Amino acid sequence: MDDKTKELIRQCRKIAGRHRVDDGKDFRLKDTDPGDTGHWSEGDKALGEEALAQGKIALATMQERLYAQDRWSVLLIFQAMDAAGKDGAIKHVMSGINPQGCQVTAFGVPSAREQDHTWLWRCMTELPERGRIGIFNRSYYEETLVARVHPKILAAQKLAPSLVTDEIWSERFDDIRGFEKHLARNGTLVLKFFLHISKGEQRRRFLSRLDEPEKNWKFRMGDVDEREHWKDYQEAYEKTIRNTATKDAPWFVIPADHKWYTRIVVAAAIVEALDSLDLHLPEVDDAQKAVLEEARKRLTKAKTES
Amino acid sequence: MDDKTKELIRQCRKIAGRHRVDDGKDFRLKDTDPGDTGHWSEGDKALGEEALAQGKIALATMQERLYAQDRWSVLLIFQAMDAAGKDGAIKHVMSGINPQGCQVTAFGVPSAREQDHTWLWRCMTELPERGRIGIFNRSYYEETLVARVHPKILAAQKLAPSLVTDEIWSERFDDIRGFEKHLARNGTLVLKFFLHISKGEQRRRFLSRLDEPEKNWKFRMGDVDEREHWKDYQEAYEKTIRNTATKDAPWFVIPADHKWYTRIVVAAAIVEALDSLDLHLPEVDDAQKAVLEEARKRLTKAKTES
Repeated sequence: MDDKTKELIRQCRKIAGRHRVDDGKDFRLKDTDPGDTGHWSEGDKALGEEALAQGKIALATMQERLYAQDRWSVLLIFQAMDAAGKDGAIKHVMSGINPQGCQVTAFGVPSAREQDHTWLWRCMTELPERGRIGIFNRSYYEETLVARVHPKILAAQKLAPSLVTDEIWSERFDDIRGFEKHLARNGTLVLKFFLHISKGEQRRRFLSRLDEPEKNWKFRMGDVDEREHWKDYQEAYEKTIRNTATKDAPWFVIPADHKWYTRIVVAAAIVEALDSLDLHLPEVDDAQKAVLEEARKRLTKAKTES
Repeated sequence: MDDKTKELIRQCRKIAGRHRVDDGKDFRLKDTDPGDTGHWSEGDKALGEEALAQGKIALATMQERLYAQDRWSVLLIFQAMDAAGKDGAIKHVMSGINPQGCQVTAFGVPSAREQDHTWLWRCMTELPERGRIGIFNRSYYEETLVARVHPKILAAQKLAPSLVTDEIWSERFDDIRGFEKHLARNGTLVLKFFLHISKGEQRRRFLSRLDEPEKNWKFRMGDVDEREHWKDYQEAYEKTIRNTATKDAPWFVIPADHKWYTRIVVAAAIVEALDSLDLHLPEVDDAQKAVLEEARKRLTKAKTES
C-alpha cells in the first residue's frame, strides 16, 4: 500500500470514528448536531469534494478485490427521515464502483407476499452474495421505526394477538442483534447509516421540491404528514440505535444538513471498514501455477499451428 | 370439539410428550431406544395404523383452519441418518392434507449460489408463508451435523480463515436458537424431528435395497461410506439436540426401527402442536355480515332478472 493510500485510510478512520456508534448503551441522539461538518467549514466544501473523489477511487479498487477474493460480503443499510439524502448519498458515494458487484434494494410498503412472512424475511432473501456489496435503501429497521410510530402498521401485520405484547420492541431489537451477529460471524460486514437531518432543513428541502419544477416529482404529501410525527420518529431512532449499535454491526449517525459532508462520512466509513478486511486478490498456489504454465504451452502451440 | 376429537388430542399429547425434548440441557441420545414402540407391541401394529389414520383426519381439518385463519405458519424439520424413514414419514403422515397449503423442500448438496450466502440463507428463503405448513427434508441442521463430521465440507464453505475458530459450533447453535426464536415470536410454529434408527436396522434396510429390485433405485454407495462415521454422527446429533432443543422449537427424538411407530409419533406431535394454536375459521364481524347480506340481495335480484 502506497503512502498516499495509507494517509487516505488514516483520514477515513478519523472521519468515520467521529460518527461511529458501536455500543449503543449511552447513545443520545441530541449529542449529534445535524449541522456538523467535522473539521471542515462550509467554505471548505471544495476540499471536501476532493476528499470524496479520492475516497471513491479507493472504494473502486477495494470493491474489485472484494469481488475477486470472493470471501466477504458487505451490507450497507441506509435509514433516515424523508429528504435527508439517502438516495443522493447512495448515488454519489457508490457511483464509481462496478455495478456487477453491487446491488441496491429499496424496501417500500410490504407486498402481500412479504406480509405473509416474518418481518425480517424480505430482507433475508435480498442479502448480498459473497464478494458483493448489498445496499438496503430502508430495511428491517422500518419495523422498529415506522411500525412503532404508527400502531396501525403493526396491526396490519397479521400477527396473532397473543404475540403482540409489551415486549414486542425489545424482542425485535433482540432478533435484529441476533440476525446481524449471524451475518458478521459468517463473513458479512454490516454497516448502518442514519442520516440525521434537522426539522428545519427538511422543511427547506420540501419547499424546494415545491418551488423548483425539476424537483416536483420528488414531492409526496405523505412526507409532510410524517413531519407531524417528528418527535416520535426521533425517539424511535434513538431507541433503535441504542439497542442495535454493536461491534458486529455499528451505526454511523451522520449529520445530514450538509449533503457534501454526509457523503464524505459515508464514503470514509465504507473505505475504513473494507480496509479492515485485509482484502487481496486470490493467491495462486504451485498447483495453479502449473495449470497456468500448461495453458501457456497449449496456447503457444495453437499459434504455431494456425 | 366433540368427545372423540378431545380423546384423540389427549392421546396425541401422551404419545408426543414421551419423545419431546424442549430443554436440551441434560439430553442423552442413549436414553432413547430406537426399537421402542411406546405402549404398543409389534403385534399391535394394526391398532397403531388405525391411530395414524385418525390422526391424519384430524390433521387435514386443522390444516384447513390454519389456511383459512392465515395467522400462523408451521415449519416441520426432519433430520435422520440415511434409511431412517424421513421420506416415508413425510409421505404417510402428510398425504391426507391439501397440497395447496403445504410445501416440502429437500436440501441436498448446496449449490454455488447457496454457498455464496451464509449457511442459514437457503433455508431462510424457503420459509413457509402464513397459513401454510413448510416441511424441510434436511435443513440448516446439516451445518452442525455433516459439516461437523466432515471437516472438508466446512473448508469448502468459503469462510475467511479468521472466522473459523474453535467457537464455530457453539456460534452456529447460538445462531440457530436466535433464528428459531425469531420465527416462534412472529407466528411460526417450529417442530423438529430426529428419526433415531439403530445401526443394525440401517444395515438391514440397506441390504433390502440391494436385494429387492424395486428398491435398487434408493441405493447410493455414499450412504454405506457414511456408516463408517456412525459414532461421530451420533455425537453430533446429541450435541445438536442438547444445544437447540428449546420451548420455542422443541426436538422430537423418535424411535425409528419400526416405521409404523415413527409415523404415529410424528402425526401425534403435529396434531398436538396445531391444537395448541387454537385455530378457528376467521370470525365474521357485523360490518362483514352487512356485506354478505348486500351480496345476497344483489345475487337474488340477478336471478329474477334472468
